Amino acid sequence: MKTLKIIKIGGNIIDDAVVLDDFLKAFSKIEGPKILVHGGGKLATKLAHQMGVKVNMIDGRRITDAATLDIITMVYAGKINKSIIAMLQAQQCNAVGFTGADGNTIESVQRPVKDINFGYVGDVQKVNTETTNLLLAGNVTPVFCAITHNTKGQLLNTNADTVASELAIGFAELYHTELYYCFEKSGVLIDVSNEDSVIEKINNNNYQDLKNQGIIADGMLPKLENCFHAIANNVQKVCIGKPEMLFNSNSKFTTIQD
Amino acid sequence: MKTLKIIKIGGNIIDDAVVLDDFLKAFSKIEGPKILVHGGGKLATKLAHQMGVKVNMIDGRRITDAATLDIITMVYAGKINKSIIAMLQAQQCNAVGFTGADGNTIESVQRPVKDINFGYVGDVQKVNTETTNLLLAGNVTPVFCAITHNTKGQLLNTNADTVASELAIGFAELYHTELYYCFEKSGVLIDVSNEDSVIEKINNNNYQDLKNQGIIADGMLPKLENCFHAIANNVQKVCIGKPEMLFNSNSKFTTIQD
Repeated sequence: MKTLKIIKIGGNIIDDAVVLDDFLKAFSKIEGPKILVHGGGKLATKLAHQMGVKVNMIDGRRITDAATLDIITMVYAGKINKSIIAMLQAQQCNAVGFTGADGNTIESVQRPVKDINFGYVGDVQKVNTETTNLLLAGNVTPVFCAITHNTKGQLLNTNADTVASELAIGFAELYHTELYYCFEKSGVLIDVSNEDSVIEKINNNNYQDLKNQGIIADGMLPKLENCFHAIANNVQKVCIGKPEMLFNSNSKFTTIQD
Repeated sequence: MKTLKIIKIGGNIIDDAVVLDDFLKAFSKIEGPKILVHGGGKLATKLAHQMGVKVNMIDGRRITDAATLDIITMVYAGKINKSIIAMLQAQQCNAVGFTGADGNTIESVQRPVKDINFGYVGDVQKVNTETTNLLLAGNVTPVFCAITHNTKGQLLNTNADTVASELAIGFAELYHTELYYCFEKSGVLIDVSNEDSVIEKINNNNYQDLKNQGIIADGMLPKLENCFHAIANNVQKVCIGKPEMLFNSNSKFTTIQD
């Protein structure tokens, strides 16, 4: 089995043109099949303000009404995704931009209303790898933004970490699949203010302890849940850290294990 | 050689949700390899007004400064393209959205400044069919918006009719290629107010006469130039008319011939 690397980047890379450019130059040199997944960064909120559309976040999650979905589609699938594609082409990395609707790659259902109506937010149901894999087999790099669809014509806003983990799980049938979550820290830190306190391995045994001690909390909780979900579903390797973990063998990062 | 149909739709279809839905339902039933090319419609101008970005048109062409290019990328490659993809998936037509940057499919150069500085507007230099053809061979339908790139990281606004004709010329090496320009009239009309006055065939012989008589004028001139450019470069069939020309064998339309 060939190795497929699925790499997710977030706002700390996307929101800084110089950092993004440096990252994409390094990313383009990664050999073998690879998929990039990107979040949205601050641009969607900025555009919403410009257009007079109210931004409504609950627990760090965006309430997605029709106007907000339009903004997200324009920013994620338009501006950010296509800028990344153009920059990768400039590095001779042949890339094609995707939402989960393209190639019917990621099928979702709109999140049911319980206490909160999240609006046009999708929970992933199924990944179809056929179309994306035509491109991977042709040495083309798919670049996914965090939008999926319900197969009935409706686009849905979907968490980018989840898009990455579900893609990794979907491709684990075809490839030895590795999932890398790039963010602003060197991994899961014992002391959030100390970049040298990286926990190198997290498994089901120490995960509960780390949660009980409050070391893994807040935004790290859903990220870790995505990691364990991937590891439990045949993804071979899951790592969290700075992008350097991909390029520099001396850098420290966190590996999630079964 | 298989037949490839390249179909371009413009604002009269894109700007009306019901018309677009009907068109895509019919389009999805077209058998064999096909490519859809869409223009931008009125949405980019509407968004520009919402964002307070000045719209500057000269001879019907949009002056594209950096802010306008962002708007075009968001609207064409984001909102319109991805809505079309989701709607096609709902019709079981497996589709993937493209700009000319995706798959490095359409290389352009920024238009040189002569009397007018058009800004980030691209003139097509080269079409690379490899990536798109991986998808066509896998029974996937590429959907192009009217954006290209300069291969150095810069996206460029490009006329949608030109994108369609250049794609048709590029694919003429691989397929028996047919190019269909769908617009609001039943073809080139002798009397613009009479839909029954369709000129069924235009060739190099009667083209000059039609221009001299003022029957082909204004916006039809660049459209016809694109048609003749395609016919002169191995595209097998070029037609102009209402979308019905694709679906109804009794409908009248204009065929451009050598």
